[in-house]
Amino acid sequence: MTHPNVPHSDAAASSTPAPTVSWSTVATQTISVDGTAFVYRTYGPAGGTPVVFLNHLGATLDNWDPRVVDGLAAEHHVIAVDNRGVGGSGGTTPATIEDMAHDAIAFIDAMGLNMVDLLGFSMGGFIAQIIAIERPALVRKIILAGTGPAGGEGIDKVTRVTCADSITAVLRRKDPKQNLFFTRTAHGIAQSREFIKRLGERTTDRDKKISVRAFRTQLRAIHTWGLTEPADLSVITHPVLVANGEDDRMVPTSNSYDLARRLPNATLRIYPDAGHGGIFQEHQQFVTTALEFLRG
Amino acid sequence: MTHPNVPHSDAAASSTPAPTVSWSTVATQTISVDGTAFVYRTYGPAGGTPVVFLNHLGATLDNWDPRVVDGLAAEHHVIAVDNRGVGGSGGTTPATIEDMAHDAIAFIDAMGLNMVDLLGFSMGGFIAQIIAIERPALVRKIILAGTGPAGGEGIDKVTRVTCADSITAVLRRKDPKQNLFFTRTAHGIAQSREFIKRLGERTTDRDKKISVRAFRTQLRAIHTWGLTEPADLSVITHPVLVANGEDDRMVPTSNSYDLARRLPNATLRIYPDAGHGGIFQEHQQFVTTALEFLRG
Repeated sequence: MTHPNVPHSDAAASSTPAPTVSWSTVATQTISVDGTAFVYRTYGPAGGTPVVFLNHLGATLDNWDPRVVDGLAAEHHVIAVDNRGVGGSGGTTPATIEDMAHDAIAFIDAMGLNMVDLLGFSMGGFIAQIIAIERPALVRKIILAGTGPAGGEGIDKVTRVTCADSITAVLRRKDPKQNLFFTRTAHGIAQSREFIKRLGERTTDRDKKISVRAFRTQLRAIHTWGLTEPADLSVITHPVLVANGEDDRMVPTSNSYDLARRLPNATLRIYPDAGHGGIFQEHQQFVTTALEFLRG
Repeated sequence: MTHPNVPHSDAAASSTPAPTVSWSTVATQTISVDGTAFVYRTYGPAGGTPVVFLNHLGATLDNWDPRVVDGLAAEHHVIAVDNRGVGGSGGTTPATIEDMAHDAIAFIDAMGLNMVDLLGFSMGGFIAQIIAIERPALVRKIILAGTGPAGGEGIDKVTRVTCADSITAVLRRKDPKQNLFFTRTAHGIAQSREFIKRLGERTTDRDKKISVRAFRTQLRAIHTWGLTEPADLSVITHPVLVANGEDDRMVPTSNSYDLARRLPNATLRIYPDAGHGGIFQEHQQFVTTALEFLRG
């Protein structure tokens, strides 16, 4: 285990050539946050505002698409972290999105960061909104992907959709993400297979899997979020990039339109023939758009 | 495909030694039932009352424990069949247990059988009850395993339990039947692995898997059964063997006690440290008991 808070790729800032570090090879580090060990991975050029990746239901570090992380790490210092009680991070998964956001804030503070960009995918996007509302000065820019606002349409159905697709996955002996994240068109099916392959690119030092208990707690937290009274999103004055597939079955795409309408400084990107995992499927387009958005 | 209705093992009734036929090797046959092709497998000594096996949620022919079928086939002509729209059987899965029973009756009639014994496991046990009520003269004896009456306690929770355990199965990369059919004790876990292994013993001519659509229709039919007004079981005057594990999470064991109490001619066997798949886990005990029950 390397020392916390020292990017594995900090050689990039020195005069010697940087070692080849990528999402598939970057070391997993640990930092103590109020006495709980959080695991994270960080690399990319030092300097500038780091991008903190906030993960989705059931996801550990190994669930980020290598193309998306590597893509942003080409220009930015990136930091991906496991939520409390998830994968390699210690403690118990909190029962609310709000408490997950408080954990993320505590992690960012513990890392000694004064300002970050946030990339929140799905549940991570819920968390990002809370961070932006509660600690606006901590955040520079926000990417909200495959996500929606509190009380958003159909978010209380995530449990049902996850159940149904888990049964399908069991019967078809496939990864449920293939149905949950992608369209069932020929293109979507092909892309889902490529995505699952990419998630296997990291062969050593993989993260611990999420526990069944943590997964269920997250499901309940998402359900509650789906039934929460809508927040006033006009207070989030940060630049926000909202991105999704046009046919998201988990957090219906109408939520992305809703976010873009209610956030005063939002840009919207909707990918055709793509689902919840639209930013992974269309990673080339997304990385280009995200890098442009984060510049300056 | 062999000719329908001719048991593969009919040599057993002749003077030459019977070929070694077992559940893992017996041929799959097809019979037209009112224009729909039903697949089935049959073997065991000719003569006497044949035992018709009625299958559970999601199950095809390949889901019967070889030890149980071979055990009963040692003394009885056995016939296992895929419900309409399941596995290799044609047509569309009906939305009610009653219609599944009508299909089973039509199959038995098409096979030219005047009287049968029934072994109904779980959903198959629901079907067996309807057959016994609607066509009492067609049935001699009944084995009801891991099952319950219409409106039975907790049967409307089968969908929820199946969902939860499918998520668990996906996260743990296991077969959901390991949780659904067995206890989580060391003994139950070990037995669940043996069961899954036994289901793989047949290596050729395996059945088609159930479709997601058929599985969902069955789930709805089971849910409806769980909410149905209780039937008068006193009209089922047949000898009935009720068997289950003591800790059935799918069709709670209280339903087995309830059946044994309400059926006027019932014998009850409850297996300790066993779940829904109790008759598979304790196949030696069960086969001994079942053979004794079916004799005479």
